[in-house]
Amino acid sequence: MVKRQETEARLKDCCVKDGFWSYFQELVSDVVIPYQEKILRDEIPGIEKSHAIENFRIAAGKAEGEFYGAVFQDSDLAKWLEAAAYSLQNKRDEELERRVDDVIDLIGGAQQEDGYVNTYFTIKEPEHRWQNLLDCHELYCAGHMIEAAVAYYESTGKDKFLNIMRRMADHIDRRFGPDKTRGIPGHEEIELALLRLYRATGEQRYLELSRYFIDERGTQPNYFQVEMKERSWTFWSTEAGDGTYNQSHVPVREQDKAVGHSVRAMYLYTAMADMAGETGDESLYRACLRLWENVTGRQMYVTGGIGSTVHGEAFTKDYDLPNDTVYAETCASIGLVFFTRKMLELKPSGKFADVMERCLFNGVLSGMQHDGKRFFYVNPLEVIPGLSGEQKEYKHVIPKRPQWYACACCPPNEARLLESIGKYAWGEGSDTIYSHMFLGGSYRSEMCGGILIETESGYPWNGSVKYTVHPQENGASCTLAVHIPGWCEKYRLLVNGTEALSAEGTTAEAETAAKAADVFREDGYCYIRREWKDGDTVQVDLQMEARRVYADSAVRENQGRVCLMRGPVVYCLEQEDNGGQLWQLRIPENAQISAAEEQDPVLGRYVSLNIEGARCLSGGSLYTGERPVPYAWKIKAVPYYLWGNRSEGGMQVWTLEG
Amino acid sequence: MVKRQETEARLKDCCVKDGFWSYFQELVSDVVIPYQEKILRDEIPGIEKSHAIENFRIAAGKAEGEFYGAVFQDSDLAKWLEAAAYSLQNKRDEELERRVDDVIDLIGGAQQEDGYVNTYFTIKEPEHRWQNLLDCHELYCAGHMIEAAVAYYESTGKDKFLNIMRRMADHIDRRFGPDKTRGIPGHEEIELALLRLYRATGEQRYLELSRYFIDERGTQPNYFQVEMKERSWTFWSTEAGDGTYNQSHVPVREQDKAVGHSVRAMYLYTAMADMAGETGDESLYRACLRLWENVTGRQMYVTGGIGSTVHGEAFTKDYDLPNDTVYAETCASIGLVFFTRKMLELKPSGKFADVMERCLFNGVLSGMQHDGKRFFYVNPLEVIPGLSGEQKEYKHVIPKRPQWYACACCPPNEARLLESIGKYAWGEGSDTIYSHMFLGGSYRSEMCGGILIETESGYPWNGSVKYTVHPQENGASCTLAVHIPGWCEKYRLLVNGTEALSAEGTTAEAETAAKAADVFREDGYCYIRREWKDGDTVQVDLQMEARRVYADSAVRENQGRVCLMRGPVVYCLEQEDNGGQLWQLRIPENAQISAAEEQDPVLGRYVSLNIEGARCLSGGSLYTGERPVPYAWKIKAVPYYLWGNRSEGGMQVWTLEG
Repeated sequence: MVKRQETEARLKDCCVKDGFWSYFQELVSDVVIPYQEKILRDEIPGIEKSHAIENFRIAAGKAEGEFYGAVFQDSDLAKWLEAAAYSLQNKRDEELERRVDDVIDLIGGAQQEDGYVNTYFTIKEPEHRWQNLLDCHELYCAGHMIEAAVAYYESTGKDKFLNIMRRMADHIDRRFGPDKTRGIPGHEEIELALLRLYRATGEQRYLELSRYFIDERGTQPNYFQVEMKERSWTFWSTEAGDGTYNQSHVPVREQDKAVGHSVRAMYLYTAMADMAGETGDESLYRACLRLWENVTGRQMYVTGGIGSTVHGEAFTKDYDLPNDTVYAETCASIGLVFFTRKMLELKPSGKFADVMERCLFNGVLSGMQHDGKRFFYVNPLEVIPGLSGEQKEYKHVIPKRPQWYACACCPPNEARLLESIGKYAWGEGSDTIYSHMFLGGSYRSEMCGGILIETESGYPWNGSVKYTVHPQENGASCTLAVHIPGWCEKYRLLVNGTEALSAEGTTAEAETAAKAADVFREDGYCYIRREWKDGDTVQVDLQMEARRVYADSAVRENQGRVCLMRGPVVYCLEQEDNGGQLWQLRIPENAQISAAEEQDPVLGRYVSLNIEGARCLSGGSLYTGERPVPYAWKIKAVPYYLWGNRSEGGMQVWTLEG
Repeated sequence: MVKRQETEARLKDCCVKDGFWSYFQELVSDVVIPYQEKILRDEIPGIEKSHAIENFRIAAGKAEGEFYGAVFQDSDLAKWLEAAAYSLQNKRDEELERRVDDVIDLIGGAQQEDGYVNTYFTIKEPEHRWQNLLDCHELYCAGHMIEAAVAYYESTGKDKFLNIMRRMADHIDRRFGPDKTRGIPGHEEIELALLRLYRATGEQRYLELSRYFIDERGTQPNYFQVEMKERSWTFWSTEAGDGTYNQSHVPVREQDKAVGHSVRAMYLYTAMADMAGETGDESLYRACLRLWENVTGRQMYVTGGIGSTVHGEAFTKDYDLPNDTVYAETCASIGLVFFTRKMLELKPSGKFADVMERCLFNGVLSGMQHDGKRFFYVNPLEVIPGLSGEQKEYKHVIPKRPQWYACACCPPNEARLLESIGKYAWGEGSDTIYSHMFLGGSYRSEMCGGILIETESGYPWNGSVKYTVHPQENGASCTLAVHIPGWCEKYRLLVNGTEALSAEGTTAEAETAAKAADVFREDGYCYIRREWKDGDTVQVDLQMEARRVYADSAVRENQGRVCLMRGPVVYCLEQEDNGGQLWQLRIPENAQISAAEEQDPVLGRYVSLNIEGARCLSGGSLYTGERPVPYAWKIKAVPYYLWGNRSEGGMQVWTLEG
C-alpha cells in the first residue's frame, strides 16, 4: 500500500522574502488581483467583457439582466477568489477582504434552496441542470468554488463561503454516486476540490464522492455516450467521441498515456495522486506514476509546457513537440505543477521537484507579462513574424500577451499559483521538513515543539542558499531535506560552515562533518539529521553555469538544435536582441557562453547569456548549390519567461548548433 | 509591345519514344484512362463514387435519378475527355473513340436549348443558374469542357463536341461582358479555355470574352461582394472575403504576389500570359513576370510544388514552405507547368524551361502511383508516421495515394498533362525549333519545307541526348535551339560529332565548329543555326552527378538541411530504405554520394543515391546535457516522384547536414 510521505505546507507557515518570488507575489497582490477584480466587475473598458460578478448579482436577484459569458464563467471568479484568499494570507488588506466578503454574500444569495450554485443554469436554463455534464462544466465550476472556499477559510478562518460550498457539495453528493444518478464531469476538477474540502472539514462523504467520480470515469458504458443519447438538448459540443478528449476512454487505473485536453488531464491526475495518498490505493498510484512518466518523459516541452496541439488543446503523440504550432496552455503547466506536487507527497524524489521547478520558472511564469497586466494562454517555443497569430495554423500563437480572454481560465490560475508558492516549496513528513525548491523567507513548523527556518536565496540567478534554523527548544531532533536540482552537477553543502556533502567526492573533513550531522543524499535530496541548535546553518552552493540542453533524438522538431539553460531557467532568443530570421542563427558546438547580470527597466533584474555565434546566409536564390555561409554574429539570450515583454518580433528556444 | 517568340508544338507533330516518358504515356493510355473511365461510370466498387457520366445521362433524359457529386463534378469528365483525346492522338483506339463519341452525344443531349451545359444546374437547381459565380463553378466546368472539345477536335478532326461547346461559349458570351451582365468566375479556367477555343475556331469573340474576364477581375466594386448582396441563396461558402482567395483582390495588372488558392492562381496566370502573347499586352506581361518570379522565387517547393497550406489550398507568405503541413496539390504543380509554358512562348528563357522540368519530374509525377491506379492530391516533402494523415494539422497529408477522391480534380489532370507532354518539350518560333526538354522520339516541323528531328534521350537517368535532323530538302536553313538545364554545370555539345560548345571554355577546334555551325548559347539555350543536311546530328552530353541543394536562408524550415538532386530529379529518403525516425539522419558535408542504377519490380528502372551518412541518437531522456551521438549509417535516397509506392512509412526530402 502506498503511503503519503509528506504533506504540502500550510500557507500560513510560509513567508516569502526572496529576490525573485517576492516580486511576483507583490505584483499579484498589488497589481494582478486588483486588475482582475476590475475586469470581473466590468470596470475596464475596451477589453473582453467578463460579467462574472454581474452574473452572480443577477442570480442573487440584486440586478436585472441576462447571463453573459461562457457556461463556465463562474470559474474565473472562483479562481480569483482563491488568489485573493492567498493574497490576504500573504498581505493583510481589509478593503480587499471586505470586497471578497461582499462577493461571498452574492454567491450565497445566488445559491438555490437545494444548495445549487451556478449562475448560468440559475439565470438561463434552470430546466437543464445536470443534463449535460459533457459540455456544461457545472461540476467544474463547483470544484473551483470549493477550492476558493477552502482557501478563504484557511486564510481568514471565516466559514461562510465554506458552508455555502459544503451545501453545494452536499447537493452534488445527494445526486451523484453509487445507487444514485450516474455522472462524471466533462472537465475534471471537482475530484481534487472534494479532497480539499474533505481535509478542511473532515467529512468522509466528500472523499467518497471524489472517489466515485474518479472510479466511475472510463467505465462502460461510456457515461457521455449514454448522456448524449438521453438528451435531445445539446450545448456546444455534440460529440462525446471515444472519450480520449476528457480521459474517459478507459478506467483511470488502466490509463498509461496522457491523452486529450491537457488541463483536464492534469486536474484528473492531481486528484488521482491525492486520492492515492489519502487512501493508500496502490493501483491508482501506479497509474499516476505511469501517466507522470509519460507526460514528463515524452510529452513535455523543455519549458514545462504540455499540450502539443491547439485542436482540443491536447496531447498528441509521444515526442511530438512542435515549437511553432504548440499549445502549452499556461493552465496546463500550472496543472502539471499541481499533479507533480501531489506525486512529491507520495514520494519525495528529485525528479518530481525538478519538473515542478521547470514549470514554475518557465512555462508558468511566461503566462504573465512582467507588469502583471497581460496574459498568455498559449506559450510557444517559436514565434515567426507574419505567421504566428496570423496564418491559420498559427492563429492561436499570439505573439503578444492579450489583456484578457473570453475564456479567461489562465490569468487567475496564474495568480492563485503564485500567491501559494510556499505550498510547493515546503512540505513536512513525520520527522522531516522538506525544502523542495529554494525560496527565500521563512518556514515555521510545529515539529519538535516548533522550529523556524529562515532562508536566504539568490536563486535562480545564483546558486547560493542559506538555511538558518531556530528551534523552539535547543537540541530538537529532526531532519531537514533539501532538494538539489537535477540540473546541478557540482554543489557543496555546508553545515555550520563546514562542508558536509558535495557532488565531487567528499574530503575526510567533510566525512566527519557528515557523520556528525548525519548528512546523506538520496534521490535528489540532501538529508540533514541533527539535533538543531538555534542559529545552526545549512549552506548550499550550487555551481551555476550556462549549459546546453538537447532533446531526445525521438523529438523531430529539435534535431540538430540546442536549448540554453542556466539553473532552472530556460533561455530564448528574441528578435529585439538578435535581429530577424532567428532560424539563421547558429550556436557553434565549442562557443563560450557567458552570463551577464542585467537590470532592465522592463524586464527587471535578470541574467542574460551571450554567445559568439553565427548567422548563416545564402546568396539569394530560392534553391542553390551553394551552402549558406556562416558570418560571426553576437547572440544574446534572455530568460524564456520574459519573452514578449518588449517589442513584438520573432522568438525561439531551440537554435541550430554547428 | 511584348511578342510571342514561340508556340507550343501541335501534338500530332510529336512522337514520344523515350526510356522514361513512354512508360508514363503508355501507362496513362493503357491503365489510367480505362481505369478512370470505369470510375466515371461507377463501375469500380468500394471507392469514392463519381457519377459524372450518370449525371449527364440524367441531364440528357436518358436515365432517371438525382445529381450526385460536387457542383463541379462535370469537370472530372471533361479532363478525362481531354486526356482521352490526347491518348487517341498518341495511340489509335477505335473502341475508346467510340465510347468518347457516346459520351459526347450525352453531353449534346444534356445541352439546353440556349446552349447551356452543366449537369448540376440542369438537374438540380435550374432556377439558380449564373447566380453564384463565387462558389458554383459553372464557368470553370465550361472551361474544362471547352478544353476537352478543342483537344478532341485537334486530335480526331471531328467537330461535334467543339460545336456543342461553341454553343455554350456563345451562351456565356451573350450573358457576360461589357454592357451585358457583369460577372467573373470564382474559379478561373474559362479564360484560358476561351483562348484555346479562339485559336481552334478563329472566332474573335472568344478572345474578347476571355479578355473581359481577365480585365474585370479585381475591379471595384468587388464582383463577389455585389453578387453576395444580391442573392439570398448561398451554396457552400458564404464569404467572398477580400478576394485574395480567388485573386480578385486587385486588378490583375496590379498583382505582384501570388495569393490565395494556388490552382485558381495558376489557371488565371496561364490565361494572362497567353492573352499577353495573343494581344501583345505589355502591362499584362509585366504582371505575369512579377507573379512568376514571386511564385518560383519565393513560394515554390524544391519539387515544383506550390501552395503551403491546406487552409484554402493556398499560398501563404514568401519563403513559408513547411515540409510537413504542406499542400502542394498535384493540380497546382500542373498549373505551374501550364503557366510556365505560356511564359516560355513569350520569351524562350532557361529559367522557364527549368521550372517546367522541376515540376514535371517531381511534383507532377509524384501525384500518381507508379502503377497508375492511385493518386495524390497533396504532395508532402515530409511524412511522419503517426502524425501525417492522422493528427489534425496533418490530416490532409495522406501517406498513401488513395484510389480516388470526392473532389477528383488531380487524377485526370495528371492524365491529360502526361498525354500531352510533347507540347511542353517542343515549340516553334519563326525560324527556330525549340527543344525545351529532352524527350526521346521525334518532332516533325513544316519549317523550310519540312523537317523531321529524331531524338534519342537517356534523360533523366543520364545526360546523353542525340538529335538527328532529316530536312525534306537538303540544305534547309533554320535554327535548332536546345535547352541546357540550369542544374548542369558541365556539358558538351557536338555537331556531327565535333564539339561545338561546352560549359568549360571552348577549344580552337570547337570554335571553328561553332563558327561553321553558327552555334551559340543564350539565356539557357544552345542555338544551332545551320543549313541542315539529312542525318546531321546534334549530340548533347550533360555531366550528371548527384548534387547538394540548399534553400535560401529565408526558408525557416530547411535551415541546416540539404536536398539531394541528380539531373532534374529530386531525391527523398524513405523509411523502407533507411529505418524510422528519418530526422535523426545526417548527411555529412564531405560525404561522397554515389549513384546506382536500379531495376525494381515496383519502382521500375531508376537511379538511387547512396551516402555514407550518420544517424544521431541520444541517451533516452527527454532533455539532457549530452549531445546526441552520430553513428555511421548507410543512407539510400530514391527519386521523390517514386515515394510511397512500397510500404507505408516516413519520408523526407530535406535532411540535416553535419
